[in-house]
Amino acid sequence: MENEFDSRLLENAVTELSRLPGIGRKTALRLALYMLRRERNEAVALGNAIIDMRCGIRYCSVCHNISETEVCPICADTGRDRSTVCVVENVRDVLSVERTGRFEGVYHVLGGVISPIDGIGPSNLEIGSLIERVRDDESVHEVVLALSPTMEGDTTNYYIYRKLQELDRPDLLVTRLARGVAVGNELEYTDELTLGRSIVDRRPFN
Amino acid sequence: MENEFDSRLLENAVTELSRLPGIGRKTALRLALYMLRRERNEAVALGNAIIDMRCGIRYCSVCHNISETEVCPICADTGRDRSTVCVVENVRDVLSVERTGRFEGVYHVLGGVISPIDGIGPSNLEIGSLIERVRDDESVHEVVLALSPTMEGDTTNYYIYRKLQELDRPDLLVTRLARGVAVGNELEYTDELTLGRSIVDRRPFN
Repeated sequence: MENEFDSRLLENAVTELSRLPGIGRKTALRLALYMLRRERNEAVALGNAIIDMRCGIRYCSVCHNISETEVCPICADTGRDRSTVCVVENVRDVLSVERTGRFEGVYHVLGGVISPIDGIGPSNLEIGSLIERVRDDESVHEVVLALSPTMEGDTTNYYIYRKLQELDRPDLLVTRLARGVAVGNELEYTDELTLGRSIVDRRPFN
Repeated sequence: MENEFDSRLLENAVTELSRLPGIGRKTALRLALYMLRRERNEAVALGNAIIDMRCGIRYCSVCHNISETEVCPICADTGRDRSTVCVVENVRDVLSVERTGRFEGVYHVLGGVISPIDGIGPSNLEIGSLIERVRDDESVHEVVLALSPTMEGDTTNYYIYRKLQELDRPDLLVTRLARGVAVGNELEYTDELTLGRSIVDRRPFN
Protein backbone atom coordinates (compact mmCIF):
# COMPACT_ATOMS: atom_id res chain seq x y z
CA MET A 1 0.00 0.00 0.00
CA GLU A 2 1.47 3.34 -1.07
CA ASN A 3 1.53 6.27 1.32
CA GLU A 4 -2.09 7.31 1.28
CA PHE A 5 -1.83 10.32 3.57
CA ASP A 6 0.47 13.30 3.64
CA SER A 7 1.36 12.49 7.22
CA ARG A 8 3.62 9.53 7.95
CA LEU A 9 2.41 9.55 11.57
CA LEU A 10 -1.21 9.21 10.47
CA GLU A 11 -0.26 6.58 7.90
CA ASN A 12 1.51 4.59 10.59
CA ALA A 13 -1.35 4.81 13.10
CA VAL A 14 -3.90 3.75 10.46
CA THR A 15 -1.72 0.82 9.40
CA GLU A 16 -1.28 -0.39 12.98
CA LEU A 17 -4.96 0.05 13.86
CA SER A 18 -6.06 -1.83 10.74
CA ARG A 19 -4.11 -4.91 11.89
CA LEU A 20 -6.80 -5.42 14.54
CA PRO A 21 -9.54 -7.92 13.70
CA GLY A 22 -12.67 -6.38 12.19
CA ILE A 23 -10.96 -3.02 11.61
CA GLY A 24 -10.29 -2.13 8.00
CA ARG A 25 -8.41 0.93 6.76
CA LYS A 26 -11.56 3.04 6.59
CA THR A 27 -12.49 2.34 10.19
CA ALA A 28 -8.87 2.77 11.24
CA LEU A 29 -8.80 6.22 9.62
CA ARG A 30 -12.06 7.14 11.33
CA LEU A 31 -10.62 6.10 14.71
CA ALA A 32 -7.35 7.95 14.09
CA LEU A 33 -9.11 11.18 13.09
CA TYR A 34 -11.34 10.85 16.15
CA MET A 35 -8.28 10.63 18.39
CA LEU A 36 -6.80 13.70 16.68
CA ARG A 37 -9.92 15.67 17.59
CA ARG A 38 -9.79 14.58 21.25
CA GLU A 39 -7.44 15.72 23.98
CA ARG A 40 -3.84 14.58 23.69
CA ASN A 41 -3.87 12.82 27.07
CA GLU A 42 -6.68 10.50 25.93
CA ALA A 43 -4.56 9.12 23.11
CA VAL A 44 -1.56 8.80 25.43
CA ALA A 45 -3.71 6.92 27.97
CA LEU A 46 -4.97 4.56 25.28
CA GLY A 47 -1.52 3.93 23.82
CA ASN A 48 0.00 3.27 27.22
CA ALA A 49 -2.90 1.07 28.33
CA ILE A 50 -2.32 -1.17 25.30
CA ILE A 51 1.43 -1.38 25.86
CA ASP A 52 1.14 -1.90 29.63
CA MET A 53 -1.48 -4.58 29.18
CA ARG A 54 0.51 -6.53 26.59
CA CYS A 55 3.77 -6.26 28.53
CA GLY A 56 2.26 -6.84 31.97
CA ILE A 57 -0.07 -9.75 31.31
CA ARG A 58 1.11 -13.31 30.89
CA TYR A 59 -0.58 -16.66 31.16
CA CYS A 60 -1.14 -18.47 34.46
CA SER A 61 1.29 -21.38 34.63
CA VAL A 62 -1.42 -23.59 36.13
CA CYS A 63 -4.64 -22.86 34.22
CA HIS A 64 -3.41 -20.70 31.28
CA ASN A 65 -5.89 -17.95 32.11
CA ILE A 66 -4.47 -14.45 31.70
CA SER A 67 -2.68 -13.21 34.77
CA GLU A 68 -0.41 -10.44 35.96
CA THR A 69 1.40 -12.95 38.17
CA GLU A 70 2.96 -16.39 37.69
CA VAL A 71 -0.23 -17.97 39.08
CA CYS A 72 -3.57 -16.25 38.43
CA PRO A 73 -5.79 -14.93 41.26
CA ILE A 74 -8.29 -17.76 40.80
CA CYS A 75 -5.68 -20.51 41.06
CA ALA A 76 -4.02 -18.69 43.96
CA ASP A 77 -7.31 -18.24 45.85
CA THR A 78 -7.28 -20.76 48.70
CA GLY A 79 -11.04 -20.32 49.02
CA ARG A 80 -11.66 -22.02 45.65
CA ASP A 81 -12.38 -25.71 45.38
CA ARG A 82 -9.31 -27.15 43.64
CA SER A 83 -10.85 -30.60 43.30
CA THR A 84 -13.09 -29.34 40.47
CA VAL A 85 -11.48 -28.18 37.22
CA CYS A 86 -13.66 -26.47 34.64
CA VAL A 87 -12.27 -26.80 31.10
CA VAL A 88 -13.10 -23.80 28.89
CA GLU A 89 -12.16 -22.72 25.41
CA ASN A 90 -10.78 -19.27 26.16
CA VAL A 91 -10.31 -16.41 28.60
CA ARG A 92 -13.68 -14.93 27.73
CA ASP A 93 -15.41 -18.14 28.80
CA VAL A 94 -13.69 -17.92 32.21
CA LEU A 95 -15.24 -14.46 32.55
CA SER A 96 -18.65 -15.80 31.49
CA VAL A 97 -18.62 -18.65 34.02
CA GLU A 98 -17.27 -16.35 36.75
CA ARG A 99 -20.07 -13.90 36.09
CA THR A 100 -22.69 -16.57 36.86
CA GLY A 101 -21.32 -16.76 40.42
CA ARG A 102 -22.25 -20.47 40.41
CA PHE A 103 -18.85 -22.08 40.12
CA GLU A 104 -16.46 -22.40 43.05
CA GLY A 105 -13.78 -24.53 41.40
CA VAL A 106 -10.77 -23.67 39.26
CA TYR A 107 -10.25 -23.50 35.50
CA HIS A 108 -8.19 -24.85 32.66
CA VAL A 109 -8.12 -22.70 29.53
CA LEU A 110 -7.52 -24.68 26.33
CA GLY A 111 -6.87 -21.69 24.08
CA GLY A 112 -9.32 -22.98 21.45
CA VAL A 113 -11.08 -26.14 20.34
CA ILE A 114 -10.06 -28.91 17.94
CA SER A 115 -10.91 -27.71 14.45
CA PRO A 116 -9.22 -29.62 11.61
CA ILE A 117 -10.63 -27.14 9.08
CA ASP A 118 -8.67 -24.34 10.79
CA GLY A 119 -5.63 -26.56 11.23
CA ILE A 120 -6.07 -26.72 15.01
CA GLY A 121 -5.27 -30.11 16.50
CA PRO A 122 -4.92 -31.27 20.12
CA SER A 123 -1.21 -30.36 20.14
CA ASN A 124 -2.06 -26.69 19.44
CA LEU A 125 -4.17 -26.56 22.59
CA GLU A 126 -3.51 -26.87 26.32
CA ILE A 127 -4.89 -30.41 26.36
CA GLY A 128 -1.59 -32.14 27.19
CA SER A 129 -1.11 -29.83 30.16
CA LEU A 130 -4.66 -30.59 31.34
CA ILE A 131 -4.07 -34.35 31.26
CA GLU A 132 -0.76 -33.93 33.11
CA ARG A 133 -2.39 -31.66 35.65
CA VAL A 134 -5.12 -34.20 36.42
CA ARG A 135 -2.59 -37.07 36.43
CA ASP A 136 -0.20 -35.32 38.80
CA ASP A 137 -2.71 -33.72 41.15
CA GLU A 138 -4.62 -36.37 43.03
CA SER A 139 -6.84 -33.77 44.67
CA VAL A 140 -8.67 -33.25 41.34
CA HIS A 141 -11.90 -35.23 41.58
CA GLU A 142 -14.01 -33.69 38.84
CA VAL A 143 -13.36 -32.28 35.40
CA VAL A 144 -16.24 -30.18 34.03
CA LEU A 145 -16.12 -29.99 30.25
CA ALA A 146 -17.58 -26.55 29.53
CA LEU A 147 -16.93 -26.10 25.82
CA SER A 148 -19.53 -24.63 23.48
CA PRO A 149 -22.12 -27.15 22.27
CA THR A 150 -20.83 -27.01 18.69
CA MET A 151 -19.35 -29.71 16.47
CA GLU A 152 -15.82 -28.60 17.39
CA GLY A 153 -16.66 -28.26 21.07
CA ASP A 154 -18.20 -31.72 21.18
CA THR A 155 -15.23 -33.24 19.35
CA THR A 156 -12.85 -31.63 21.81
CA ASN A 157 -14.97 -32.72 24.79
CA TYR A 158 -14.89 -36.28 23.54
CA TYR A 159 -11.14 -36.22 22.84
CA ILE A 160 -10.42 -34.95 26.36
CA TYR A 161 -12.84 -37.48 27.86
CA ARG A 162 -10.99 -40.35 26.17
CA LYS A 163 -7.60 -39.03 27.24
CA LEU A 164 -8.82 -38.75 30.83
CA GLN A 165 -10.12 -42.33 30.68
CA GLU A 166 -6.63 -43.48 29.74
CA LEU A 167 -5.35 -42.12 33.05
CA ASP A 168 -7.21 -44.99 34.71
CA ARG A 169 -8.45 -42.97 37.66
CA PRO A 170 -11.80 -44.51 38.58
CA ASP A 171 -12.36 -41.83 41.24
CA LEU A 172 -12.34 -39.10 38.61
CA LEU A 173 -15.75 -37.74 37.59
CA VAL A 174 -16.00 -36.16 34.13
CA THR A 175 -19.07 -33.98 33.62
CA ARG A 176 -20.34 -31.63 30.94
CA LEU A 177 -22.65 -28.61 30.97
CA ALA A 178 -26.37 -29.37 31.02
CA ARG A 179 -28.08 -28.74 27.70
CA GLY A 180 -31.67 -27.70 27.54
CA VAL A 181 -34.18 -24.94 27.24
CA ALA A 182 -32.66 -21.51 27.99
CA VAL A 183 -34.05 -19.90 31.15
CA GLY A 184 -36.75 -17.41 30.16
CA ASN A 185 -37.09 -18.70 26.60
CA GLU A 186 -40.46 -19.79 25.21
CA LEU A 187 -40.64 -23.43 24.09
CA GLU A 188 -42.12 -22.27 20.81
CA TYR A 189 -38.88 -20.52 19.88
CA THR A 190 -36.48 -23.20 21.13
CA ASP A 191 -34.82 -25.13 18.30
CA GLU A 192 -35.80 -28.80 18.06
CA LEU A 193 -32.33 -30.20 18.80
CA THR A 194 -32.17 -28.30 22.08
CA LEU A 195 -35.76 -29.09 22.99
CA GLY A 196 -35.20 -32.79 22.18
CA ARG A 197 -32.09 -32.77 24.35
CA SER A 198 -34.00 -31.18 27.21
CA ILE A 199 -36.59 -33.99 27.07
CA VAL A 200 -33.97 -36.75 27.00
CA ASP A 201 -32.07 -35.04 29.88
CA ARG A 202 -35.24 -34.37 31.93
CA ARG A 203 -34.75 -34.14 35.69
CA PRO A 204 -36.99 -35.04 38.65
CA PHE A 205 -39.27 -32.13 39.54
CA ASN A 206 -38.53 -31.01 43.07
CA MET B 1 -18.39 0.28 36.26
CA GLU B 2 -16.98 -2.17 38.81
CA ASN B 3 -13.82 -4.10 38.11
CA GLU B 4 -15.02 -6.72 35.69
CA PHE B 5 -11.78 -8.58 35.19
CA ASP B 6 -9.22 -10.00 37.57
CA SER B 7 -6.54 -8.01 35.82
CA ARG B 8 -6.36 -4.27 36.35
CA LEU B 9 -4.21 -3.96 33.20
CA LEU B 10 -6.86 -5.68 31.09
CA GLU B 11 -9.58 -3.63 32.75
CA ASN B 12 -7.72 -0.45 31.91
CA ALA B 13 -7.07 -1.38 28.28
CA VAL B 14 -10.71 -2.35 27.76
CA THR B 15 -11.90 0.91 29.33
CA GLU B 16 -9.60 3.02 27.14
CA LEU B 17 -10.45 1.10 23.95
CA SER B 18 -14.17 1.40 24.60
CA ARG B 19 -13.90 5.21 24.59
CA LEU B 20 -13.41 5.00 20.82
CA PRO B 21 -16.51 5.59 18.68
CA GLY B 22 -18.35 2.43 17.67
CA ILE B 23 -16.38 0.27 20.10
CA GLY B 24 -18.32 -1.03 23.07
CA ARG B 25 -16.93 -3.00 25.99
CA LYS B 26 -17.50 -6.35 24.26
CA THR B 27 -15.58 -5.33 21.17
CA ALA B 28 -12.91 -3.71 23.33
CA LEU B 29 -12.44 -6.97 25.22
CA ARG B 30 -12.23 -8.89 21.95
CA LEU B 31 -9.54 -6.51 20.68
CA ALA B 32 -7.61 -6.66 23.96
CA LEU B 33 -7.63 -10.46 24.04
CA TYR B 34 -6.55 -10.52 20.40
CA MET B 35 -3.56 -8.33 21.25
CA LEU B 36 -2.69 -10.61 24.15
CA ARG B 37 -2.52 -13.57 21.76
CA ARG B 38 -0.23 -11.72 19.33
CA GLU B 39 3.45 -10.87 19.67
CA ARG B 40 4.34 -8.26 22.25
CA ASN B 41 6.02 -5.96 19.71
CA GLU B 42 2.76 -5.63 17.75
CA ALA B 43 0.97 -4.12 20.74
CA VAL B 44 3.94 -1.87 21.47
CA ALA B 45 3.94 -0.69 17.84
CA LEU B 46 0.22 0.06 17.97
CA GLY B 47 0.42 1.86 21.30
CA ASN B 48 3.35 3.99 20.18
CA ALA B 49 1.79 4.73 16.78
CA ILE B 50 -1.28 6.16 18.54
CA ILE B 51 0.78 8.26 20.95
CA ASP B 52 3.21 9.49 18.28
CA MET B 53 0.38 10.40 15.94
CA ARG B 54 -1.54 12.36 18.55
CA CYS B 55 1.52 14.16 19.85
CA GLY B 56 3.12 14.76 16.44
CA ILE B 57 0.16 15.95 14.41
CA ARG B 58 -1.33 19.41 14.69
CA TYR B 59 -3.50 21.52 12.42
CA CYS B 60 -2.13 23.57 9.54
CA SER B 61 -2.27 27.25 10.52
CA VAL B 62 -3.47 28.17 7.03
CA CYS B 63 -6.03 25.55 5.98
CA HIS B 64 -6.64 23.60 9.24
CA ASN B 65 -5.87 20.30 7.56
CA ILE B 66 -3.85 17.91 9.74
CA SER B 67 -0.13 18.48 9.47
CA GLU B 68 3.15 17.50 11.10
CA THR B 69 4.42 21.01 10.50
CA GLU B 70 3.15 24.56 11.11
CA VAL B 71 1.96 24.69 7.48
CA CYS B 72 0.76 21.49 5.80
CA PRO B 73 2.50 20.01 2.72
CA ILE B 74 -0.36 21.08 0.44
CA CYS B 75 -0.27 24.73 1.57
CA ALA B 76 3.53 24.66 1.45
CA ASP B 77 3.63 23.19 -2.07
CA THR B 78 4.57 26.03 -4.42
CA GLY B 79 3.30 23.92 -7.33
CA ARG B 80 -0.31 24.27 -6.13
CA ASP B 81 -2.61 26.97 -7.40
CA ARG B 82 -3.16 29.22 -4.40
CA SER B 83 -5.77 31.32 -6.16
CA THR B 84 -8.34 28.52 -5.79
CA VAL B 85 -9.47 27.54 -2.28
CA CYS B 86 -11.60 24.41 -1.90
CA VAL B 87 -13.77 24.51 1.23
CA VAL B 88 -14.37 21.04 2.71
CA GLU B 89 -16.03 19.73 5.83
CA ASN B 90 -13.19 17.64 7.25
CA VAL B 91 -9.79 16.04 6.82
CA ARG B 92 -11.31 12.97 5.19
CA ASP B 93 -12.81 15.12 2.45
CA VAL B 94 -9.38 16.58 1.68
CA LEU B 95 -8.19 13.00 1.17
CA SER B 96 -11.21 12.25 -1.05
CA VAL B 97 -10.66 15.28 -3.29
CA GLU B 98 -6.89 14.64 -3.43
CA ARG B 99 -7.54 11.05 -4.51
CA THR B 100 -9.43 12.28 -7.58
CA GLY B 101 -6.24 13.92 -8.83
CA ARG B 102 -8.41 16.61 -10.42
CA PHE B 103 -7.82 19.53 -8.07
CA GLU B 104 -4.68 21.65 -8.17
CA GLY B 105 -5.68 24.34 -5.70
CA VAL B 106 -5.48 24.53 -1.91
CA TYR B 107 -7.98 23.73 0.84
CA HIS B 108 -9.78 25.17 3.80
CA VAL B 109 -11.08 22.63 6.32
CA LEU B 110 -14.14 23.83 8.24
CA GLY B 111 -14.11 21.07 10.85
CA GLY B 112 -17.83 20.36 10.35
CA VAL B 113 -20.98 21.91 8.94
CA ILE B 114 -23.59 24.17 10.48
CA SER B 115 -26.06 21.93 12.31
CA PRO B 116 -28.31 23.66 14.85
CA ILE B 117 -29.70 20.30 15.97
CA ASP B 118 -26.18 19.26 17.07
CA GLY B 119 -25.50 22.70 18.51
CA ILE B 120 -22.94 23.54 15.82
CA GLY B 121 -23.06 27.14 14.66
CA PRO B 122 -20.72 29.16 12.40
CA SER B 123 -18.57 30.16 15.38
CA ASN B 124 -17.74 26.49 16.09
CA LEU B 125 -16.29 26.13 12.60
CA GLU B 126 -13.33 27.60 10.72
CA ILE B 127 -15.63 29.94 8.79
CA GLY B 128 -14.30 33.16 10.31
CA SER B 129 -10.74 32.16 9.41
CA LEU B 130 -11.86 31.39 5.85
CA ILE B 131 -13.43 34.82 5.40
CA GLU B 132 -10.32 36.50 6.84
CA ARG B 133 -8.09 34.42 4.61
CA VAL B 134 -10.00 35.45 1.48
CA ARG B 135 -10.18 39.08 2.66
CA ASP B 136 -6.45 39.32 3.40
CA ASP B 137 -5.10 37.33 0.46
CA GLU B 138 -5.85 39.12 -2.78
CA SER B 139 -4.40 36.26 -4.81
CA VAL B 140 -7.50 34.16 -3.99
CA HIS B 141 -9.75 34.34 -7.03
CA GLU B 142 -12.05 31.36 -6.54
CA VAL B 143 -13.66 29.65 -3.59
CA VAL B 144 -15.02 26.18 -4.37
CA LEU B 145 -17.70 25.15 -1.90
CA ALA B 146 -17.28 21.37 -1.70
CA LEU B 147 -19.54 20.41 1.18
CA SER B 148 -21.80 17.36 1.06
CA PRO B 149 -25.11 17.99 -0.76
CA THR B 150 -27.13 17.61 2.44
CA MET B 151 -29.39 20.05 4.24
CA GLU B 152 -26.54 21.02 6.60
CA GLY B 153 -23.99 21.22 3.78
CA ASP B 154 -26.27 23.45 1.70
CA THR B 155 -27.00 25.71 4.68
CA THR B 156 -23.28 26.08 5.34
CA ASN B 157 -22.55 26.71 1.65
CA TYR B 158 -25.15 29.47 1.60
CA TYR B 159 -23.91 31.03 4.84
CA ILE B 160 -20.34 31.15 3.53
CA TYR B 161 -21.54 32.49 0.17
CA ARG B 162 -23.32 35.39 1.90
CA LYS B 163 -20.30 36.16 4.09
CA LEU B 164 -18.05 36.20 1.03
CA GLN B 165 -20.44 38.55 -0.74
CA GLU B 166 -20.09 40.96 2.18
CA LEU B 167 -16.35 41.22 1.41
CA ASP B 168 -17.35 43.18 -1.68
CA ARG B 169 -14.76 41.60 -3.94
CA PRO B 170 -16.36 41.53 -7.41
CA ASP B 171 -13.35 39.63 -8.81
CA LEU B 172 -14.01 36.68 -6.48
CA LEU B 173 -15.71 33.66 -8.05
CA VAL B 174 -17.66 31.39 -5.72
CA THR B 175 -18.42 27.94 -7.18
CA ARG B 176 -19.91 24.71 -5.89
CA LEU B 177 -19.54 21.06 -6.86
CA ALA B 178 -21.60 19.93 -9.86
CA ARG B 179 -24.59 17.81 -8.94
CA GLY B 180 -25.90 15.16 -11.27
CA VAL B 181 -25.98 11.54 -12.26
CA ALA B 182 -23.09 9.58 -10.76
CA VAL B 183 -20.61 8.30 -13.34
CA GLY B 184 -21.42 4.66 -14.13
CA ASN B 185 -24.87 4.76 -12.50
CA GLU B 186 -27.99 3.72 -14.40
CA LEU B 187 -30.61 6.47 -14.74
CA GLU B 188 -33.26 4.02 -13.53
CA TYR B 189 -31.60 3.87 -10.11
CA THR B 190 -30.82 7.57 -9.77
CA ASP B 191 -33.08 9.33 -7.27
CA GLU B 192 -35.43 11.90 -8.76
CA LEU B 193 -33.91 14.92 -7.00
CA THR B 194 -30.49 14.16 -8.44
CA LEU B 195 -31.85 13.34 -11.88
CA GLY B 196 -33.93 16.52 -11.87
CA ARG B 197 -30.86 18.52 -10.90
CA SER B 198 -28.84 16.95 -13.69
CA ILE B 199 -31.47 18.05 -16.23
CA VAL B 200 -31.59 21.62 -14.91
CA ASP B 201 -27.77 21.75 -14.87
CA ARG B 202 -27.38 20.16 -18.33
CA ARG B 203 -24.20 21.08 -20.19
CA PRO B 204 -23.41 21.45 -23.93
CA PHE B 205 -22.44 18.08 -25.43
CA ASN B 206 -18.91 18.29 -26.74
